[in-house]
Amino acid sequence: MGDEEVKLLGAWPSFFSIRVEIALKMKGINYEYVAEDIFNKSPELLKYNPIHKKIPVLLHNGKPICESLVILEYIDETWKSEPSILPKDPHARAMARFWAKFIDDKCFPTMWQIRRSQGEEEREKAIKEAMEQLETLENELKGKKFFGGDEIGLVDIAANFLALWLGVMEELVGIELLTKDKFPGLCEWTDDYLSSSIIKEALPAKQKLLDRFRNMFQRTK
Amino acid sequence: MGDEEVKLLGAWPSFFSIRVEIALKMKGINYEYVAEDIFNKSPELLKYNPIHKKIPVLLHNGKPICESLVILEYIDETWKSEPSILPKDPHARAMARFWAKFIDDKCFPTMWQIRRSQGEEEREKAIKEAMEQLETLENELKGKKFFGGDEIGLVDIAANFLALWLGVMEELVGIELLTKDKFPGLCEWTDDYLSSSIIKEALPAKQKLLDRFRNMFQRTK
Repeated sequence: MGDEEVKLLGAWPSFFSIRVEIALKMKGINYEYVAEDIFNKSPELLKYNPIHKKIPVLLHNGKPICESLVILEYIDETWKSEPSILPKDPHARAMARFWAKFIDDKCFPTMWQIRRSQGEEEREKAIKEAMEQLETLENELKGKKFFGGDEIGLVDIAANFLALWLGVMEELVGIELLTKDKFPGLCEWTDDYLSSSIIKEALPAKQKLLDRFRNMFQRTK
Repeated sequence: MGDEEVKLLGAWPSFFSIRVEIALKMKGINYEYVAEDIFNKSPELLKYNPIHKKIPVLLHNGKPICESLVILEYIDETWKSEPSILPKDPHARAMARFWAKFIDDKCFPTMWQIRRSQGEEEREKAIKEAMEQLETLENELKGKKFFGGDEIGLVDIAANFLALWLGVMEELVGIELLTKDKFPGLCEWTDDYLSSSIIKEALPAKQKLLDRFRNMFQRTK
């Protein structure tokens, strides 16, 4: 597959975008990275994702694929070499899809709501909900190193938000959610995850992310 | 696969639940149907979907699978006989997942919002958004009989809401969205879809659905 064109329209502070980079690096696929400015979208982004106008967009030989979880499955189905992103067994695949969807539909909106909430009562409600979701994920991790088992898989990639971005949000908002006493499994997962060479290579430095979000939070106060 | 146990915890007025019935019928899988009362959830439902506590839940040899789109993929991957629910080509599969997600994340919430909206301005806003989404789907259908091409596939099953439930909502709210002059393709799709023997068998009668939702809307005014 040497003459293939693989291009990613992405943005480094976006964990959705970084998900795709993790998957491409896991599979050892060479790709061209095109940095998008989410406040000033390029004609290419608007052309290839006219529905949502959002990064990430993967272009494979000119064909666009949008939505990060859809892209992850596309990568796994197109480049079948190991490591696999999804397990082989249909029930295990369904569970991976279920948990990735849980992270996108439930955890991320709730945790983002903590930052966006107006007033103490609304924030407390979001924090309570977030803690319950973390508890759910803590239970799901029991007896496993990664959500994917011994190796990083779809759910781990989807959960990259928890390993880095959540800590940035905690620091900027001034709260602590993911503590070792309450969530020992998730904290150990975070350590293992961040020590993986692929993840280390794909994720931005925490300080850089902190600076970027501090700046963004100040602009949108 | 004669000694398999396939059981669906569902509810007939739910298009999420009916999606799974369509897929099971398409594949010719015998299943036991357990009618759930969504206002009085059974211990079995709470046991097998403790996270969302929602129908549909598919039980395959005792193992639960939740979330209707996840279940559809599971069915397609477990019972590989024709007809396929997803196409074979990875890019076509990604596009099917993209559109099914668009229907769930965008169209359904917007169209439901028309009914839930408070006041004229909010309703007008939701109607405008719904019309844009229908336009998007109209474009996607161009040159095809079904979203899946010549045959019903994942997106068509996901879109069952548009073929029946949307009309019910229109009638009860007193609006018209899906008209032949504005959306000839979608209207033709609806006719073709509703004429398919599998769909006819799986979908409830419109009058029964109208009565049920009229009743529900009155209770939750």
